[in-house]
Amino acid sequence: METQSENACFDGVQGVYTHRSDVCSCDMTFGLFLPEEAKDGPVPVLWYLSGLTCTHENAMTKAGAQGWAAEQGIALVFPDTSPRGDDVADDDAYDLGKGAGFYVNATQDPWAPHFRMWDYVAEELPALLADKFAIDPDRQAITGHSMGGHGALTLAMGLQGRFKSVSAFAPISNPVASDWGRKQLTAYLGADESTWAAHDASLLMRETGFDGPVLVDTGTSDQFIDLLRPEALAQAVAARRQQATLRMQPGYDHSYFFISTFMEDHVAFHAEALYAG
Amino acid sequence: METQSENACFDGVQGVYTHRSDVCSCDMTFGLFLPEEAKDGPVPVLWYLSGLTCTHENAMTKAGAQGWAAEQGIALVFPDTSPRGDDVADDDAYDLGKGAGFYVNATQDPWAPHFRMWDYVAEELPALLADKFAIDPDRQAITGHSMGGHGALTLAMGLQGRFKSVSAFAPISNPVASDWGRKQLTAYLGADESTWAAHDASLLMRETGFDGPVLVDTGTSDQFIDLLRPEALAQAVAARRQQATLRMQPGYDHSYFFISTFMEDHVAFHAEALYAG
Repeated sequence: METQSENACFDGVQGVYTHRSDVCSCDMTFGLFLPEEAKDGPVPVLWYLSGLTCTHENAMTKAGAQGWAAEQGIALVFPDTSPRGDDVADDDAYDLGKGAGFYVNATQDPWAPHFRMWDYVAEELPALLADKFAIDPDRQAITGHSMGGHGALTLAMGLQGRFKSVSAFAPISNPVASDWGRKQLTAYLGADESTWAAHDASLLMRETGFDGPVLVDTGTSDQFIDLLRPEALAQAVAARRQQATLRMQPGYDHSYFFISTFMEDHVAFHAEALYAG
Repeated sequence: METQSENACFDGVQGVYTHRSDVCSCDMTFGLFLPEEAKDGPVPVLWYLSGLTCTHENAMTKAGAQGWAAEQGIALVFPDTSPRGDDVADDDAYDLGKGAGFYVNATQDPWAPHFRMWDYVAEELPALLADKFAIDPDRQAITGHSMGGHGALTLAMGLQGRFKSVSAFAPISNPVASDWGRKQLTAYLGADESTWAAHDASLLMRETGFDGPVLVDTGTSDQFIDLLRPEALAQAVAARRQQATLRMQPGYDHSYFFISTFMEDHVAFHAEALYAG
């Protein structure tokens, strides 16, 4: 593992690190914010999964999360959104290939060899963090934006017991019924739609729900709201009687100005779950 | 004036606007955050001047200032750092020409026709803001980073009575004695160093001081600290018995991680001055 940069930030350290990923068969880069408390021992961690076209860097520089995480003594991890490198398959469209891993393990060519973001976020990166940093693997929570909100919700429901809480900003909530989803799931997983169900937050919510609190914010003026389909998740949450807060925020759009506005709420929400009991 | 974008942000609006600048003889773009209170009438404003290589956008997306400004009911304006356009002179170096206006009125060719950032920030843009937006011209404060910290300090001392308070993050504090200064002041103002004095915060502090509170943060691990010369400003502040807080922040560098860490303090500092009396 190679340190790309470390900057003092809210009494802690915002680092960027690159490591060889066996899962993705390429070098992967991630951001990690460690609060001051990590000097004294393992701290809880909040995962932030980013959206289409993003790298590890966008949320790290624009979401304004570090100050709130520092206040709560929580680490933040910012993974990349896809495998990277010259030998990694790509597509001309912004929403397929690099920057658009959709947090699945691809089974179809040309994606299968590298696009294994589910295993990367679920297995390889957590193991690396627990090994190299003062991170407490028993106190994890997860959030994300757009495609990353989809990732957060599906990972939280797919890995029951792993995360104490899950939240999302403008998540892609029902990809099996959206142009942000059908194209990518077909490409990565193939045309058999039965393999898609494990990667649809609304279907998972209907099927299993989440054993913990859920918080989702979406802007009423989100320019992509028809692709996000918050109504599918809202219906599933209510039908399951899932413990959850779903908020439609008046006038907000899909940007980081929206995310940063509500970041304080999300970090406080996760802190309550991470420090409970 | 053309609206480039408007995003909901902390109950207010983060806008980006382009207008024809008579002063700079080119189109200029700026960012403006208006808090919710601006719907009901004019609000105080905090200017944020950016550093070398920046546009209006860097601080607007990375400094994390809007949340604190919203809390205080204060507008934020983010000007560009130089004139722009194909017919504007430039230099291959990152620290001269576009992105490096140094907040002076150039008198030397090829810079003189467009590089008039002092007049742009001191006269033209404030007049436009007061005309087009709910900004109270009697309640202004100013801050900035690096070259923009230099701009904030020199404008505040050069326009006595304009700003209620001034602060800076890692300002270029003594440009007449620094490679971040001598080169640019020679290029823009010519070899006669007597014309430079009005653009050196340490010389101005020694000469006139500032009629209000001053706050300056610099990181002890700032990679450019030898170019910033905080010691010159510190000496001048003490010699003048200027009301001021100068902080050397342990371990912090020159990045936006440093700026965002201390932004809450700076906005609160200005709010106190803007709402006093």
